[in-house]
Amino acid sequence: MKSARHLLLALGLGVISFLSTSFLPDQFARAEAPQVKTQAPGFYRLMLGAFEITALFDGVFDLDASLLDNVYPEGILTQLARHFNLRNGKFQTAVNGYLVNTGEKLVLVDAGTGGGATTGRLIANLRAAGYTPEQVDAVLLTHLHGDHAGGLLDAEGKAVFPNATVHASAAEAEFWLAEDAVQRAIAAKQVPRAAPAAQLPAYFENAARLLAPYRAAGRFRTVADGVEIFPGIEIVAAHGHTPGHSGFRVTSAGERLLIWGDIVHSAAVQFARPEVAIAFDASQKTAIATRRAVFARAAREKILVGGMHLPFPGLGHVVVQGKDSYAWIPVDYTPLKD
Amino acid sequence: MKSARHLLLALGLGVISFLSTSFLPDQFARAEAPQVKTQAPGFYRLMLGAFEITALFDGVFDLDASLLDNVYPEGILTQLARHFNLRNGKFQTAVNGYLVNTGEKLVLVDAGTGGGATTGRLIANLRAAGYTPEQVDAVLLTHLHGDHAGGLLDAEGKAVFPNATVHASAAEAEFWLAEDAVQRAIAAKQVPRAAPAAQLPAYFENAARLLAPYRAAGRFRTVADGVEIFPGIEIVAAHGHTPGHSGFRVTSAGERLLIWGDIVHSAAVQFARPEVAIAFDASQKTAIATRRAVFARAAREKILVGGMHLPFPGLGHVVVQGKDSYAWIPVDYTPLKD
Repeated sequence: MKSARHLLLALGLGVISFLSTSFLPDQFARAEAPQVKTQAPGFYRLMLGAFEITALFDGVFDLDASLLDNVYPEGILTQLARHFNLRNGKFQTAVNGYLVNTGEKLVLVDAGTGGGATTGRLIANLRAAGYTPEQVDAVLLTHLHGDHAGGLLDAEGKAVFPNATVHASAAEAEFWLAEDAVQRAIAAKQVPRAAPAAQLPAYFENAARLLAPYRAAGRFRTVADGVEIFPGIEIVAAHGHTPGHSGFRVTSAGERLLIWGDIVHSAAVQFARPEVAIAFDASQKTAIATRRAVFARAAREKILVGGMHLPFPGLGHVVVQGKDSYAWIPVDYTPLKD
Repeated sequence: MKSARHLLLALGLGVISFLSTSFLPDQFARAEAPQVKTQAPGFYRLMLGAFEITALFDGVFDLDASLLDNVYPEGILTQLARHFNLRNGKFQTAVNGYLVNTGEKLVLVDAGTGGGATTGRLIANLRAAGYTPEQVDAVLLTHLHGDHAGGLLDAEGKAVFPNATVHASAAEAEFWLAEDAVQRAIAAKQVPRAAPAAQLPAYFENAARLLAPYRAAGRFRTVADGVEIFPGIEIVAAHGHTPGHSGFRVTSAGERLLIWGDIVHSAAVQFARPEVAIAFDASQKTAIATRRAVFARAAREKILVGGMHLPFPGLGHVVVQGKDSYAWIPVDYTPLKD
């Protein structure tokens, strides 16, 4: 039976020339193993004290290298090429979220894009990691850009996390949700180079749209800088990329993780050259100053870092490489230890 | 019904104090999500031209830093600590294998350890990647150490790959399988520092034991350096770690991968300091010269590399960092592209 099946498979694969012979040695009769061509699921786990941390992969963007500012283009391209991350003038950047299970609360930091040709897989990977969106108690947002808050809604505009309360910094909520948000952003020169003036109203309305069902249900909360939102999870101001951009410091049993949001968009370029900013920054000047301060402190404190646009799983450490220059040391894939 | 189930779960988790109240708001009645504590499966896939490459994770070893030679110990420890890979005087190193599906042949390069407390998972990960050991047509061995050939046998000493032919370099087979192998190795000063004289007979007998069922079935072949074993898969001499240690150069549609075996045992140390050797090398002098030559060529040719003891998945590129000093650029996790 097995041989017959293999023969049929071989036939199906077009190996018809064997049919003309009455003797089929076993090595010819065996079917070729079809290429599987699936990727390993996009989650990665580690324990942080008593907390379980799960990095969740949402997808990748191919971004134009010209989005990176403040170093002459040739320098950017050279650095990207050195990291084998330059193709047709573009570089690949990941989109990650981080799920923290404290044992009492299931907390998701950033919800990913919610869709897109090469993105929108965060929920599928959350399920692959053994959880459901219904189990999530809180979604903490580093900021209100669509690749972080887009995953709050499904394709029908309904809340993906029916039992979660969404948290964002008060400064971030004020920036995006004020009635005269567009005018205030223009007056404060908090408009990114990549946002054309004509698209500004839609750019701001998107943030309000993504939060709408949570606000309607009384499940949106704003928090001041430095507040401990849950035991062991503290919001940390890291303004610049957006006016209220924040990280989250997670601490359990003396172990610490800084989930730093968008401190880095290109690992290949910005660790070595922190002065490189991206066209999506509301204020490049503030974003650069924040990046330098966060790098310096992360390196000094040897704190574990999780980054939304670092190569998945985006977990690792920052080390000093030279004057105003750093390197990224990703964690090694390691079986889970209790 | 759902609330009742949640209540029972909450009870099970010991939240008994809530029982004394007759009113249970939903956020209290909902059960905490238990920590899942499993790691993502240990496979990683990419396409190389028309070939599908699957990196397979066998496990990790914690090796004593004193196994690394030729740099003063403080220098080794500093470099390991800089890579956050030093714990109680030990560093973690991975064990990887690589599965190449050419579309016509399913070829496994190295079979992992076959067992151990923190290793022996290669077959489980091969299955997680969508294959079975029965589908494997050939196992190519970089060398005959137990952490590469151990996976050839199951716990009962039977062949794990019933339909595969095992290939190794002629020089490697001669070194391990000759009747007077121990005496010849001693005479040629091809005995690693880590192999105590008393254990040498067992050390050599192990290689013969691992190959026995394949040799008995006429399914062991030795190949000369440089031979193209299958279309697109060529054995490349990389002697030193063992006298016949070899890599495999894989080529499809102009894309190339060098599966380099044990050119590196500590990514944290040996890219920056190629002169550092390990106590398992049969000839540290030859191993160091080979490592320098392979690094230089890999960097010059910008070839994709797969390494058995690089952090899983062990795929990436070598770049020049300074004089006689290199850096490792791992591939970014990327969804599979056709």
